[in-house]
Amino acid sequence: MRTIEWKNDRIVMIDQRKLPGKEIYFECHDFRAVAFAIKKMVIRGAPAIGVAAAMGIALGAQKIKAKDFAGFKKNFNKICEVMKETRPTAVNLFWSIQRMNDCLLKHEAINVNNLKPLLKKEAIKIMAEDIAGNYRIGENGKAFIKDGDTVLTHCNAGALATAGFGTALGIIRAACSEGKNVKVISCETRPFFQGARLTTWELMRDNIPVTLITDNMAACLMRKKEIASIIVGADRIAANGDVINKIGTYSLAILAKEHKIPFYVAAPVSSLDLSMKKGDEALIEERDEEEVTMIGKKRIAPQGIRVLNPAFDVTPFHYITGIVTDRGLVKPPLQKHLKKLLSTKNYP
Amino acid sequence: MRTIEWKNDRIVMIDQRKLPGKEIYFECHDFRAVAFAIKKMVIRGAPAIGVAAAMGIALGAQKIKAKDFAGFKKNFNKICEVMKETRPTAVNLFWSIQRMNDCLLKHEAINVNNLKPLLKKEAIKIMAEDIAGNYRIGENGKAFIKDGDTVLTHCNAGALATAGFGTALGIIRAACSEGKNVKVISCETRPFFQGARLTTWELMRDNIPVTLITDNMAACLMRKKEIASIIVGADRIAANGDVINKIGTYSLAILAKEHKIPFYVAAPVSSLDLSMKKGDEALIEERDEEEVTMIGKKRIAPQGIRVLNPAFDVTPFHYITGIVTDRGLVKPPLQKHLKKLLSTKNYP
Repeated sequence: MRTIEWKNDRIVMIDQRKLPGKEIYFECHDFRAVAFAIKKMVIRGAPAIGVAAAMGIALGAQKIKAKDFAGFKKNFNKICEVMKETRPTAVNLFWSIQRMNDCLLKHEAINVNNLKPLLKKEAIKIMAEDIAGNYRIGENGKAFIKDGDTVLTHCNAGALATAGFGTALGIIRAACSEGKNVKVISCETRPFFQGARLTTWELMRDNIPVTLITDNMAACLMRKKEIASIIVGADRIAANGDVINKIGTYSLAILAKEHKIPFYVAAPVSSLDLSMKKGDEALIEERDEEEVTMIGKKRIAPQGIRVLNPAFDVTPFHYITGIVTDRGLVKPPLQKHLKKLLSTKNYP
Repeated sequence: MRTIEWKNDRIVMIDQRKLPGKEIYFECHDFRAVAFAIKKMVIRGAPAIGVAAAMGIALGAQKIKAKDFAGFKKNFNKICEVMKETRPTAVNLFWSIQRMNDCLLKHEAINVNNLKPLLKKEAIKIMAEDIAGNYRIGENGKAFIKDGDTVLTHCNAGALATAGFGTALGIIRAACSEGKNVKVISCETRPFFQGARLTTWELMRDNIPVTLITDNMAACLMRKKEIASIIVGADRIAANGDVINKIGTYSLAILAKEHKIPFYVAAPVSSLDLSMKKGDEALIEERDEEEVTMIGKKRIAPQGIRVLNPAFDVTPFHYITGIVTDRGLVKPPLQKHLKKLLSTKNYP
């Protein structure tokens, strides 16, 4: 299974809306289809969104007809604008767009026809780097899981949320690869059921024991001392260490504190946004009410009911035991160590 | 709308499995149909279960053919046994069965034919007392809601969970009746969606402003200071004040503590079980996995996934600001005051 790949001048991604019922692949022939796929959550998960955006831009660039760099750049910028409008919260999207833009600007002197393969190469490089980064996250975090542990996770921070291997699930996979027995509790993650649909699916494929619970059961298991640790992903991490992640993450962080359970965040450095002083500066995407009121074609709430549907929440830094990145573990005080991480070549 | 009523020798209840889509009434011609209705959650909510059990027993008693008291009692006991097996956690069920049994034993000297109307009268009295008790709960708790407050509630502790008016929602209704502006946040309450389906429905009918959220959004709203208080119902309350209630209640209690929000429990004295020293002694019902993995006919999790589905959790007494009962407010220390409540005629 590949979350996303470049195949015969198309971007092919597994359609995550259809999982686990159907394993269908969504093929994008142009960048607008990629933008649609991000917006409608055919592909989701901060790192995967970043990779998809880069690939979408590169795909769009292949079709640009321009005589000079200025003309090429004008069209390129339009593509980037469309990508920027897809989803607002995961910073990896903007990080990826920036990187594609940097790649373009670096090659201003080149013949316009040669820009296209360079941009394609950069997008594929971003994808490959993401997978490699996830393996490093796994290595950097696996010591936090002991043999026999039950780890609780929320949403899907797995292979499906990245180009492959996963962030939070990458750590679990790395621990399993060492021969540790690890059990996973997957919170179903309302309203979009990423935990019920995706985390369960990819862990079952890897024969990692996984049990599904509704989000509101987590506290009950913690009280019974059945959870050794919590590991989640991140959509954006502010300079002070506040973590923006799937709605429900903040709740789990409080429950972890109350039960004295370590709470780890796993994310690549592309999820860091140190331009943001604290998490509350982030724009939290409000999604369609029907995600809450409808399941498939079944309406579960009365017509006309008011609904809130923030897709993410902010977990203040002081709830976080550590952030596991592809460049190493970031321990509290997070603000100091995040700054050091990005300013030091050989961190830690 | 009546949650449950005795009508032409049938027990008629609104079918809560079908709400809010369809307002269908479920008619029970014999006690086994009532037992089915409790088990399958046609009717649910601890006080409503108690009322239904009493009515079911009385309905069953109408058809007993016995020449003497011993024969009548033998048949009566069989009916009670069927009722006892429906659902294990809500103590109101056992309280109701006990009361019907006490009623029978009190009239041993009476002609067997006269037992039937007496038992019917007792069941209808239990129903009427429940409604009257809920009005008192409302009166005893309404001062905790200030004009302009937003109150969060979980599951459905409303008219539908009782014979009428509701416990937690009874307090909200009483506050609204005083002319206070009250907004309600209803947690959807996975897996059975009592909040999404029932609490929204009955509050909308009363024109009380209600907003639906998924369970995992509650913490986020509390952090934004959008919740003034939390009021929930109870399925069983132990002698030390531990509250057994719908899964997710414990989680909300911890979040309330973390955000310094008062956390009230509303319940009739029939929900008290002082024979139980602490909440962990209660049998927590594990319900069918399909409640978690299927929504209507739509499967949301992979085939073969392991699932946990405890219907209730235990909230330790120290998280609870107060228990609002039909006999008055029980303040901490709960153990001392609960004991006093049951042993004093004019509590408090």
